[in-house]
Amino acid sequence: MRIAIDAMGGDNAPDAIVSGALEAGQLLDDCDRLILVGPAKEIEPRISAAKSKKASVAVIDAPEVIGMDEPPVESLRKKVKSSIAVLSKLAKRDQADAVISAGNTGACVAAFQMRMRNLPGVNRPGIAVVFPTFEGPVTICDVGANIACKPINLYQYAVMAGIYAHHMLAVNNPRVGLMSIGQEDAKGNEMVKRTRDLLKADSDMNFVGNIEGRDIFKGVCDVAICDGFVGNVILKLTEGLVNGLFKAIKHELMTEKLRLAMKFKPVMTRIYKKYDYNEYGGALLLGLNGTALICHGTSQSRTIKNAILAAKKFHMAKINDKIIEYLSKSSSYIVHNSQDKPLKNSQNHGRAFDDKSR
Amino acid sequence: MRIAIDAMGGDNAPDAIVSGALEAGQLLDDCDRLILVGPAKEIEPRISAAKSKKASVAVIDAPEVIGMDEPPVESLRKKVKSSIAVLSKLAKRDQADAVISAGNTGACVAAFQMRMRNLPGVNRPGIAVVFPTFEGPVTICDVGANIACKPINLYQYAVMAGIYAHHMLAVNNPRVGLMSIGQEDAKGNEMVKRTRDLLKADSDMNFVGNIEGRDIFKGVCDVAICDGFVGNVILKLTEGLVNGLFKAIKHELMTEKLRLAMKFKPVMTRIYKKYDYNEYGGALLLGLNGTALICHGTSQSRTIKNAILAAKKFHMAKINDKIIEYLSKSSSYIVHNSQDKPLKNSQNHGRAFDDKSR
Repeated sequence: MRIAIDAMGGDNAPDAIVSGALEAGQLLDDCDRLILVGPAKEIEPRISAAKSKKASVAVIDAPEVIGMDEPPVESLRKKVKSSIAVLSKLAKRDQADAVISAGNTGACVAAFQMRMRNLPGVNRPGIAVVFPTFEGPVTICDVGANIACKPINLYQYAVMAGIYAHHMLAVNNPRVGLMSIGQEDAKGNEMVKRTRDLLKADSDMNFVGNIEGRDIFKGVCDVAICDGFVGNVILKLTEGLVNGLFKAIKHELMTEKLRLAMKFKPVMTRIYKKYDYNEYGGALLLGLNGTALICHGTSQSRTIKNAILAAKKFHMAKINDKIIEYLSKSSSYIVHNSQDKPLKNSQNHGRAFDDKSR
Repeated sequence: MRIAIDAMGGDNAPDAIVSGALEAGQLLDDCDRLILVGPAKEIEPRISAAKSKKASVAVIDAPEVIGMDEPPVESLRKKVKSSIAVLSKLAKRDQADAVISAGNTGACVAAFQMRMRNLPGVNRPGIAVVFPTFEGPVTICDVGANIACKPINLYQYAVMAGIYAHHMLAVNNPRVGLMSIGQEDAKGNEMVKRTRDLLKADSDMNFVGNIEGRDIFKGVCDVAICDGFVGNVILKLTEGLVNGLFKAIKHELMTEKLRLAMKFKPVMTRIYKKYDYNEYGGALLLGLNGTALICHGTSQSRTIKNAILAAKKFHMAKINDKIIEYLSKSSSYIVHNSQDKPLKNSQNHGRAFDDKSR
């Protein structure tokens, strides 16, 4: 298969990207082809410098770069020769089977959505990330592609993330939880309540009901569904909290004897490795008619290598075909149940502690 | 002042509550009075058993108990002699200057809102919690009272939480951040954008703009504002993640030599203590015409003691008067700016990565 990678995406580009691609190349099959997209004059010398490679690596010139903080849509329009713009066109023209970028997330989502279009039956794509927890991996969708979700979007995220967890993470019959503010059925806003009705109506879905923030780490579900605003807060909060806590532990250790601090270092390194998102490579943009992975801006070569392997696994497992098949079967009663009514946004419809007596 | 405490609230009631009240009693003034509300036959023997006390402790009989998982409104209506119902009536009849409960949060919010009413100028109360972070305490509001926020609610949370941080945590000119999915102005949904306009329009507010989930732990703001759904997810996610991470560390240590594990225990205990929410006692329900604290269901006697001291500090600092004064001054231009338009809930108005070019 042909995997195109944004060579200029992220804080460590292009070095980490090129290295990661070459590392992955060692592990791919002879028939696979990697395409690095970015300024040829920057990338080609780096490839030549590296010696060992198995899979062939091609370079497609894209002299412009979209910065991490540039406004997505505007920069895409202005920089038609940027690596992200070129990447999305490769996917559109069927010149790449998968695209990967650690660049500006907003620009990636906008470009990939615009060029690759949605899978049949999918209304809006969602970004799925895997949280490595003590109780096993939890797939969370959406973490930022769609901040104005409708119940039907959330239902589709449950379907897609469930199929993803089954085929990518080998989770049998994944338990799906719906993010809310209490486990009881009556808790949550109108969108949560209507999404719950859709999920319950699907007898093929292993729906375990509402979950709360703390449940992600308690092993009660394999898939957690939320709108992109909440998911994005969850993703970044987790990152900030883990970093903050490790900083606090380091600070406390510094007040101890150096020998003790040194002895504890390998323990912390083990934990960091075990729960390291870099192992999962990147976040799948589920629901696109193709394979698109978005990596963290701080991606290292190892992250890129794993993202390339994940893209191959996703493509080879024909996950998109399975999503189309599932949604085509479930569509009749789901469409009937969703009825796409507008969500009310009045205070009366969002009491935090509503109950059945109301 | 008179502080009424729900003796039956939380997992460790009534023992932890009675002990906490008696501990606080030692630290209060002679003129202060504590009122324990709950089944007299359960509480009185526990008070008699304890010897030393300075402040007087009264008991008001409330034979019924609302369970932690009972539906709030329905149980309040059925159990008129429950500790939470009696507590809220004491506040209403001006028989208590402050109320505290570690019981069913939903029932507390419903009862206190219904009986105590809002402060003049406040549309909806919000729950404020203090996150002890490595960079200092961060006050987050709302964490679950109001899951269908309007921009004016969020603006008022910023005002109230700012005054709270200034007077309760001695933070000078608190920096207020608005929870969103990116720091740039263009990021966020329509509610975030309209709230930002209100916050910017207030020249007395030290508004630092949008923040992301990770920023809570990075020292960029002293106050973080969000709707009750997002805030509740943040609160519970943080709790779950911290517990999960400590569990993982413990697990890793167990694979080490016992001596090393034992040496590390005091370090972890220090960290746990330093970032322990029990130190802050409980969460203030800001915007009520009175003083109401809601404590965590797992509250220990220390938590209750600290909650009683926090209630006294809040009351004595006349924070509610300061909120009324601030809002009465800001009301003219804020009302002009907010105009209470209904929020649109269409996909076009909530693109995650919208930018100015649209």
